[in-house]
Amino acid sequence: MKIIVLKFGGTSVGSLEKIVKVTKIIISYIKKKYKVIVVSSAMSGVTNELLSKTKKIAQNFPNDEKDVILSTGEQISCALIAGKLCDFGYKSRSWLGWQLPILTSGNHSSSRIVKIQKTKILNYLKKDGIPIIAGYQGINNDFRITTLERGGSDTSAILCAKFFDAEKCIIFTDVKGVYTTDPNLIKNAKKIEKISYEEMLEMASLGAKVMQPVSIQEARLNRIEIDVRSTFSKMSGTLITKKKDILSKNTIRGISFTKNDAKLTLIGVKDKPGIAALIFKPLYENSINVDMVVQNVSAGGRETDLTFTIKLEDLKKTRKLVENNRYIKFRKLIVNRNVSKVSIVGVGMVTTPGVTFRMFRALAKKKINIEVISTSEIKISVLINKKNLKKSVEILHQEFKLNNSL
Amino acid sequence: MKIIVLKFGGTSVGSLEKIVKVTKIIISYIKKKYKVIVVSSAMSGVTNELLSKTKKIAQNFPNDEKDVILSTGEQISCALIAGKLCDFGYKSRSWLGWQLPILTSGNHSSSRIVKIQKTKILNYLKKDGIPIIAGYQGINNDFRITTLERGGSDTSAILCAKFFDAEKCIIFTDVKGVYTTDPNLIKNAKKIEKISYEEMLEMASLGAKVMQPVSIQEARLNRIEIDVRSTFSKMSGTLITKKKDILSKNTIRGISFTKNDAKLTLIGVKDKPGIAALIFKPLYENSINVDMVVQNVSAGGRETDLTFTIKLEDLKKTRKLVENNRYIKFRKLIVNRNVSKVSIVGVGMVTTPGVTFRMFRALAKKKINIEVISTSEIKISVLINKKNLKKSVEILHQEFKLNNSL
Repeated sequence: MKIIVLKFGGTSVGSLEKIVKVTKIIISYIKKKYKVIVVSSAMSGVTNELLSKTKKIAQNFPNDEKDVILSTGEQISCALIAGKLCDFGYKSRSWLGWQLPILTSGNHSSSRIVKIQKTKILNYLKKDGIPIIAGYQGINNDFRITTLERGGSDTSAILCAKFFDAEKCIIFTDVKGVYTTDPNLIKNAKKIEKISYEEMLEMASLGAKVMQPVSIQEARLNRIEIDVRSTFSKMSGTLITKKKDILSKNTIRGISFTKNDAKLTLIGVKDKPGIAALIFKPLYENSINVDMVVQNVSAGGRETDLTFTIKLEDLKKTRKLVENNRYIKFRKLIVNRNVSKVSIVGVGMVTTPGVTFRMFRALAKKKINIEVISTSEIKISVLINKKNLKKSVEILHQEFKLNNSL
Repeated sequence: MKIIVLKFGGTSVGSLEKIVKVTKIIISYIKKKYKVIVVSSAMSGVTNELLSKTKKIAQNFPNDEKDVILSTGEQISCALIAGKLCDFGYKSRSWLGWQLPILTSGNHSSSRIVKIQKTKILNYLKKDGIPIIAGYQGINNDFRITTLERGGSDTSAILCAKFFDAEKCIIFTDVKGVYTTDPNLIKNAKKIEKISYEEMLEMASLGAKVMQPVSIQEARLNRIEIDVRSTFSKMSGTLITKKKDILSKNTIRGISFTKNDAKLTLIGVKDKPGIAALIFKPLYENSINVDMVVQNVSAGGRETDLTFTIKLEDLKKTRKLVENNRYIKFRKLIVNRNVSKVSIVGVGMVTTPGVTFRMFRALAKKKINIEVISTSEIKISVLINKKNLKKSVEILHQEFKLNNSL
């Protein structure tokens, strides 16, 4: 069977009119003789609306019941798609997590898909049915409804492609593909034709909101090609694929950035072995993600300064945890809310010398000060003053010739 | 185990504040050492809102997918109740139709409960859990979600009381109980302390909207006592119970009425054996319920007049079916939209002579013309001009001394 997985995001099924549009896309693939498996998100806004009910009614609303509530979003969108396909004369039905079943493990509200039972869907495909599978949900060993992380429908789709051995997975969304940087900020931003899993992972984690990072990681592990494209345009999208399939003259594939970071600097920390661990332990215990970290070389071995960045939303809590940390001593805590992280991403970086130098030189030319630096094999990130964000992205976009076609 | 079933209707769980109120009622029964099983409807308005989505997106939206969508209403309300009980420190969880399971047969959207699997709930009760069971839903043999008739959560509750051998079933609703007639029309209407299943069935079918008729029939067959009371008042409600448990000096227990009937009269129907069947066959085939029927004695055996009533909403369709009926001939069709049916109900009627006479005399005194009459063992219904509705109910309420306490 020539199986294809089509995944529709929240904005793609955001209204009844859009759902009708989605059914027509599905039918176009049926006409191309594909066996189509559809995975759908909830209609946009629905999950947040349901979530706010649970928050309003109880301070400690249990995650298991939250999952029962949130899973109804996909239940409704999938049934609407299936119902409309029937109305158009096709054989279709919704499949909920418990009906396959889609087996998950881990905690409620952040479960992971362990297995997708294939038999029922394969039989249904053989009988020319179009299964519409609810994304973002599954069941656990206790036959309770579970949900994945937010945005988990991407992962549901990738794993459907894996378990059903699909030729391809197409992610239909509200953007035309993955861009060299945010087109809302830089009007020269170009759509990328092909990007590697690794690059996409960095782009996704660093702030490009096209796909959920976990889903890209699953695609990478299972070697599943993803085609990201717009539900509302016939234009080709971006293919996320293996490194070796990418031929590009560009070392750098894209530039991503964050807008909601905060930088904390502890001045005059009494230095001793394990001091960083003592600082970060309470943050870890409170699920606060520390991103960039810099520790100055201790002068004379007695005192050091330590700088790290977190999400702005975690600032209040973090500040309290640092100030109330009895195991460390420091002279002063400096907080900076006006920082942004700009990152250049590209698998070619590791084999191309001078990328770091070119990045720093380009920024220096415009007198943009770099506060913190962090690097990996395929990306370099710098922390800068937020007011320089647009200028920085612009100059780097130009420096690495991303304005030209890819 | 001393089991009690508490059922909450749509208005009782109509807002988050009301759901909090509902959890407090549940806790009050836990404190009385009951093992409590809760059955909940969807939050008021939700089912209609979901239904309208299916109607808007497709002319022929399939019933199986409609059930997938409508069942989410109860899924959400039950999870909210359970989540709030957990927040209050109690052990509680939602149970969906497929999780027990609640087995149904028959068509989608009008399924009947065949069996409720008890094991999981009984184990949960033994561990002091408070199960919140989704009303109105179940699954069929194909593991697809089914729904009962509208208002089916009443039936879910009654059948939970049956299968779990509950001491009692309490229906919490937005009215204080069953009234002698609609308190919105007649301000003298009195709450009835006890009413028999049979009387309640007539009251329910005839227009008193307190409970769904099917559920009362199930309660009657299974001898389950129902206590109907308000979620928002501490006042005692109405007990629906066996005939023999009712002692009352009043022959007539209540007066119900309809507002949306239409009367059709076929003048000059060519009389022949089976003519009524030929007239009603196409109506039956189109699920149109014919209520009162009168056929005049045929004068000379050649022609007759036939009068019947239907719901106003069926009028357009009925008219077409009658006019296009090739198997009957008649001279003229007269339609009257301005009719109401007023019924007096009481199990004592059959042993009390003169009830019919008293009803007719009371109406005649006020010059109210009776257009059609129909009777059963425990009720007498008359069709009158709608403009006389209030006057008729008032005079009958007085005639049968329903203004006094019951």
